Amino acid sequence: MTTPSAVWRDVVRIRETAPLVHNITNYVVMNTTANALLAIGASPVMAHAIDEVEDMVRLAGALVINIGTLSPAWVDAMFRAGREASKTGIPIVLDPVGAGATSYRTDTARQLGRDVSPSIIRGNASEIRALVQADATTRGVDSMHSAEESVEHARRVADQYRCTVSMSGATDVIVCRDATVRVDNGHPLMPRVTGLGCTATALTGAFAAVNPSAFDAAVHAMIVMGIAGEIAGERAAGPGSFWVQFLDALYALQQSDIAARMRSSDG
Amino acid sequence: MTTPSAVWRDVVRIRETAPLVHNITNYVVMNTTANALLAIGASPVMAHAIDEVEDMVRLAGALVINIGTLSPAWVDAMFRAGREASKTGIPIVLDPVGAGATSYRTDTARQLGRDVSPSIIRGNASEIRALVQADATTRGVDSMHSAEESVEHARRVADQYRCTVSMSGATDVIVCRDATVRVDNGHPLMPRVTGLGCTATALTGAFAAVNPSAFDAAVHAMIVMGIAGEIAGERAAGPGSFWVQFLDALYALQQSDIAARMRSSDG
Amino acid sequence: MTTPSAVWRDVVRIRETAPLVHNITNYVVMNTTANALLAIGASPVMAHAIDEVEDMVRLAGALVINIGTLSPAWVDAMFRAGREASKTGIPIVLDPVGAGATSYRTDTARQLGRDVSPSIIRGNASEIRALVQADATTRGVDSMHSAEESVEHARRVADQYRCTVSMSGATDVIVCRDATVRVDNGHPLMPRVTGLGCTATALTGAFAAVNPSAFDAAVHAMIVMGIAGEIAGERAAGPGSFWVQFLDALYALQQSDIAARMRSSDG
Repeated sequence: MTTPSAVWRDVVRIRETAPLVHNITNYVVMNTTANALLAIGASPVMAHAIDEVEDMVRLAGALVINIGTLSPAWVDAMFRAGREASKTGIPIVLDPVGAGATSYRTDTARQLGRDVSPSIIRGNASEIRALVQADATTRGVDSMHSAEESVEHARRVADQYRCTVSMSGATDVIVCRDATVRVDNGHPLMPRVTGLGCTATALTGAFAAVNPSAFDAAVHAMIVMGIAGEIAGERAAGPGSFWVQFLDALYALQQSDIAARMRSSDG
Repeated sequence: MTTPSAVWRDVVRIRETAPLVHNITNYVVMNTTANALLAIGASPVMAHAIDEVEDMVRLAGALVINIGTLSPAWVDAMFRAGREASKTGIPIVLDPVGAGATSYRTDTARQLGRDVSPSIIRGNASEIRALVQADATTRGVDSMHSAEESVEHARRVADQYRCTVSMSGATDVIVCRDATVRVDNGHPLMPRVTGLGCTATALTGAFAAVNPSAFDAAVHAMIVMGIAGEIAGERAAGPGSFWVQFLDALYALQQSDIAARMRSSDG
Repeated sequence: MTTPSAVWRDVVRIRETAPLVHNITNYVVMNTTANALLAIGASPVMAHAIDEVEDMVRLAGALVINIGTLSPAWVDAMFRAGREASKTGIPIVLDPVGAGATSYRTDTARQLGRDVSPSIIRGNASEIRALVQADATTRGVDSMHSAEESVEHARRVADQYRCTVSMSGATDVIVCRDATVRVDNGHPLMPRVTGLGCTATALTGAFAAVNPSAFDAAVHAMIVMGIAGEIAGERAAGPGSFWVQFLDALYALQQSDIAARMRSSDG
């Protein structure tokens, strides 16, 4: 069972050890996710050149692969870094941004999922579904189908790709072969700020760097994400001030915030 | 004649239908324009790979092409997405960022203007002039020549490229073959924040996705841009807080704000 | 000796002449550094295409080369723009981001340093060390070794590359062949915001565009950076609000702020 003290322990580990999180991610969110990683206490690095991704990932505590603005040279680097990370036991978090929207994204996300053995796949319901459904289509990066159907898709992805699946939505659902946790933290302004899904993925990387259980890391990251979002949402007048408050909330997060606000349930 | 209720109708349509706006844009402003589109209620997607731009643009309500950090592979994608959009009737907004500064930019902007048939070209006075004047030179992305000369350049661009031209400045001027509107909203802090021109272009894309008249879409977008800028400017202490307030203002914009503040005139 | 009035003179020159600063920089910080340059009063332009970098740099008052997310095509553009700038006497500021972390970065930074004759190299202690030490290793972009060792490395870099070296840290140290200045301005939140080192580099470019002494430009930039950081830190609740306040502080910076806060010492 998820406890506030287990979540807090990971936050403390991140702050104390400042794990290096290597991101091969999209142009839109690079600044956003670097700032979120710094705010929680991790050390972000962004590097995508074929000439250095293997050297870089060997220094890292986790690798985050995000296909949000993919192109062939970047995809090559994702495979190369991913294989190196996989070989040397560095946990990988894969965000299949926009899978389902174009066949290029769907195919790339599936191949990465098969080939680099991510510990965790994190996406919204449409993206997760696109990894297992032949006829999946996504409208951009939105998601729109029934909640229980989506959980079923997440279970199939977890099974097929032998990993933890962290699916964000009004309720976040984290599944692995033998466990399911739902997280009800968060705030309605979150989808109105670009890159919050990608930020969840990056933070999941930080938690995976300090927690040997991929499943626990994914759950703890979504709880912290949701709680920082709630605190920010209560202080914000709109999406501009939300992001400022979100970074401040991540930075200032205390054990009592987690104890008072955490809303997660098993199964 | 432009009325506050016509502007407001478009804002409501954007908020209700969340049109997908496909951006092939520059690295500097991707985050900025994605956030502005989300704040007004649209759904941004950034995608530039040759392998997917045609698939992506077919899902979109508008295509925004911005050459701010152009390079050959990106220019190829702009042409390919542009031709597909043009063929299938999806409105295109072209921002010729820095045209006039280098011949690579000037030539690329002119070829895009001729080849992909943009509905709207949006730029500052120097960039607009560079599309029709042989000896045009721009100092970076600045603009500096007489207001009425600039309007004449805009008319020539509208004529030659058979499109609406939306030219930003202290007074924004929107022209098409048989109409001219001037918009006097805005705030002096706006040129001190990077990407506000590009944000105007992106918002113009959102309005073009919901309004079949390219001219009206361009006018309404500049009014909303200017009014959100005024509200933000009144609340800001400098360019940092301006951007935060701008996103909050776009998000919270009400019909009464438009009615009270709109300053546009015909001819 | 560095005086507040000399620092202020440069700020005024930047505000009055709005020098064009051409940046070939990394994806993470493009928006960040463009906003900082606008806030201080300069005119940023980002351009990296082989087809235009020489044309662009000839319009500029300074060239900033930052290898933060390097890849071969970008490195080619850095060399090409750098050689053109060097040939025409435009000052170059080089930021060897992550040198020491991978051999690709170390080698590229060293070749740029030798080949384009930067006026100023600006980095943290690990990056500076990597330019002269065979066995240098950096953990991402962090720095960790004794302060006096680091100053010795900076002196060796200044000597070997015949340039000013501006090394940021708790105390910033600026060295050239025959002078050393230490700057003690700054705030502990600064390393918790992404791109503040890159922002220091970009601002150094703005000062180099208005001050013919590379050494004085580097010193003045770090003083302004540190003072704006102090003002921001006093008003911020965390790294999110820090960045907002930092841009506002740069924009509103007054002579009295410099006179009251400047803490620099020679030798």
